[in-house]
Amino acid sequence: MIAKTPEPPYYAVIFTSLRTDGDNGYAEMSNRMVELAKAQSGFLGYESAREGLGITVSYWKDQESIRNWRDNLEHQAARRKGKILWYKQFTTRIAKVERDYDFIIAQDFEK
Amino acid sequence: MIAKTPEPPYYAVIFTSLRTDGDNGYAEMSNRMVELAKAQSGFLGYESAREGLGITVSYWKDQESIRNWRDNLEHQAARRKGKILWYKQFTTRIAKVERDYDFIIAQDFEK
Repeated sequence: MIAKTPEPPYYAVIFTSLRTDGDNGYAEMSNRMVELAKAQSGFLGYESAREGLGITVSYWKDQESIRNWRDNLEHQAARRKGKILWYKQFTTRIAKVERDYDFIIAQDFEK
Repeated sequence: MIAKTPEPPYYAVIFTSLRTDGDNGYAEMSNRMVELAKAQSGFLGYESAREGLGITVSYWKDQESIRNWRDNLEHQAARRKGKILWYKQFTTRIAKVERDYDFIIAQDFEK
């Protein structure tokens, strides 16, 4: 569930959102977008959680991969629908990951 | 609940985690860390959600602010305890936000 990403640098798209009430086809679109993103060149993984506030972080090889994903026609249609139907508010941030650190509990036992 | 951050560039610390079972003092520590972070120079805001996977993104003015927060003694103690008590696994990613976009539903009505 924690994305396994390669050595930095790579890119993160941090999408933070507040939903409207009701599903209105959101779950189906959301699953479809994950499926589509996974098929994109340069897609490295994603992480998602919602607790009132929703945070989805997708990871990408480079800026070009992000531009290609942004320009995907089905993704564009979903984004338009998102503004009409699914979201009250959102912020998208494009960020270059410079460093990362992992901790896994089993590794501590091995040391 | 969506952090109001200034114009890029600024930094994001993306902390993704899987918890151990039980609270074990986690909620109290978590509130205290938010309080401490808010008092740090260069702190710009944070967003957090847990749904099995937990994602917390904190935003910082620059790398120096992040280093100062990392070196805070109470934060260091909490991180040590986190590896023993609270987390099965986590990844921390330090990323430079290059671009961002906002959507608020009311703004569409004004256009």
